[in-house]
Amino acid sequence: MRVTIRTVLSDLMGNMERIDGTVDTLKPGNPDTEITGIITAFCATQYVVERAIAIGANLLITHEGVFYSHHETSEWLKSDPVYHAKLTLIERSEIAIFRYHDYWHRHTPDGIMVGLLRELEWSAYVDEQQPAATILTIPAMTVSEAAQYIKRKLGISYVRVAGDLSQTCRHVGIVVGYRGGGTMAIPLFNQHHLDLIIAGEGPEWETPEYVRDAVHQGRSKALIMLGHAESEAPGMKYLAEILAEKYPMLPTCFIAEQPIYQLV
Amino acid sequence: MRVTIRTVLSDLMGNMERIDGTVDTLKPGNPDTEITGIITAFCATQYVVERAIAIGANLLITHEGVFYSHHETSEWLKSDPVYHAKLTLIERSEIAIFRYHDYWHRHTPDGIMVGLLRELEWSAYVDEQQPAATILTIPAMTVSEAAQYIKRKLGISYVRVAGDLSQTCRHVGIVVGYRGGGTMAIPLFNQHHLDLIIAGEGPEWETPEYVRDAVHQGRSKALIMLGHAESEAPGMKYLAEILAEKYPMLPTCFIAEQPIYQLV
Repeated sequence: MRVTIRTVLSDLMGNMERIDGTVDTLKPGNPDTEITGIITAFCATQYVVERAIAIGANLLITHEGVFYSHHETSEWLKSDPVYHAKLTLIERSEIAIFRYHDYWHRHTPDGIMVGLLRELEWSAYVDEQQPAATILTIPAMTVSEAAQYIKRKLGISYVRVAGDLSQTCRHVGIVVGYRGGGTMAIPLFNQHHLDLIIAGEGPEWETPEYVRDAVHQGRSKALIMLGHAESEAPGMKYLAEILAEKYPMLPTCFIAEQPIYQLV
Repeated sequence: MRVTIRTVLSDLMGNMERIDGTVDTLKPGNPDTEITGIITAFCATQYVVERAIAIGANLLITHEGVFYSHHETSEWLKSDPVYHAKLTLIERSEIAIFRYHDYWHRHTPDGIMVGLLRELEWSAYVDEQQPAATILTIPAMTVSEAAQYIKRKLGISYVRVAGDLSQTCRHVGIVVGYRGGGTMAIPLFNQHHLDLIIAGEGPEWETPEYVRDAVHQGRSKALIMLGHAESEAPGMKYLAEILAEKYPMLPTCFIAEQPIYQLV
């Protein structure tokens, strides 16, 4: 059976309301192209693009952009050799790249969040799925134990923690990606009486400074920063599982990347 | 000799051109107050405010805001107990807080950068001081050696590194604070043929993803992320030294904070 990019994209967008100014575009790519294989990934890194080509997949679905910017404005990169080498590789390969960011987050519930909760095996502990956050009641454990558990489940080598490691946590909020910023994360602490927020990424002078002050005031608040990719890659892995089930005739897989930072 | 807050602030602003919409305000505080002591710090954390009060200093000069946001809009915090406890402490103490951010960066050269270069003992290696970046030629060393050197000089326990640790670096760019983002940092690599950029903080999907691709393409590019406070606190420590020299009659000191994150 012939499956075109248009068919898969129409599945991914479902019956969702159009999002104005969305970054979710097919670029490059022709919707009428017959799919030879699908790769999902957190980001279309040079390595991921090369792997997709080597595997023979011609549809790459990624969460973040190709050129180091959320809005993919590449004007400022026009004289950059790294940009040109990557662009040339993509153009010559005839691979199609679809960015699945806004619509995957806008799913009910957020597909990226579902993927993370599955990986953490915490889906059963969810109290409330909000559009941009999930509220859970987990079995009581210390912040240190929670960090160790998360590292083990996500297969990551470190997390960054603000707050007291020995504090017990039970009421937990999760925000993925760049939703770890102050206006997004801080109000959750009090609205839901949270002990712990688990986030992807956010400015260092916002939520962790709030947690620092809260702890200094004698309050039980902690923050575990996973890393942006660490918080969102599971959602793209989950997407590959969904697509593989829906299109068993197409080779479909998720490609993992190395952590973006090494610690020294 | 009686020194008022107005006198010190007028020194700090110098003859600099007014910056529209600056975050550098005295809040709270009355410029006519006689200074009993000056504290400088990266951020007016609850701990720093308490220490300043305990020491008997009534002018606190900090780089970042008091309430977890660059623009200090606290409307969204109005029902937050951590915010209220800190605000009450500040209001009852009669301490004045001056935020010295935009004007200190706008100094020629940037006072925050000067403080960092002094701490690194790299001032002699500067090729070019740009308004938002410094370009240096350092003695050749590997990225790993550079990371170890920086950790030792700044007294920090870890840095996050993107790129190949064994690569040699000599041409280095430094950007402090949140200037580690893509549009700010990436063009420096090619404009100045840099091997290494040392930055404070920036989005994870921007500069480190660029470095990842560059290295995968066989180019020698690396990034050392210091942390926001780690890159800017030396500039506030340096400020305390300047003020102590200028106002020897006033007790003046820099207060260091703990790192905002622990690694687990």
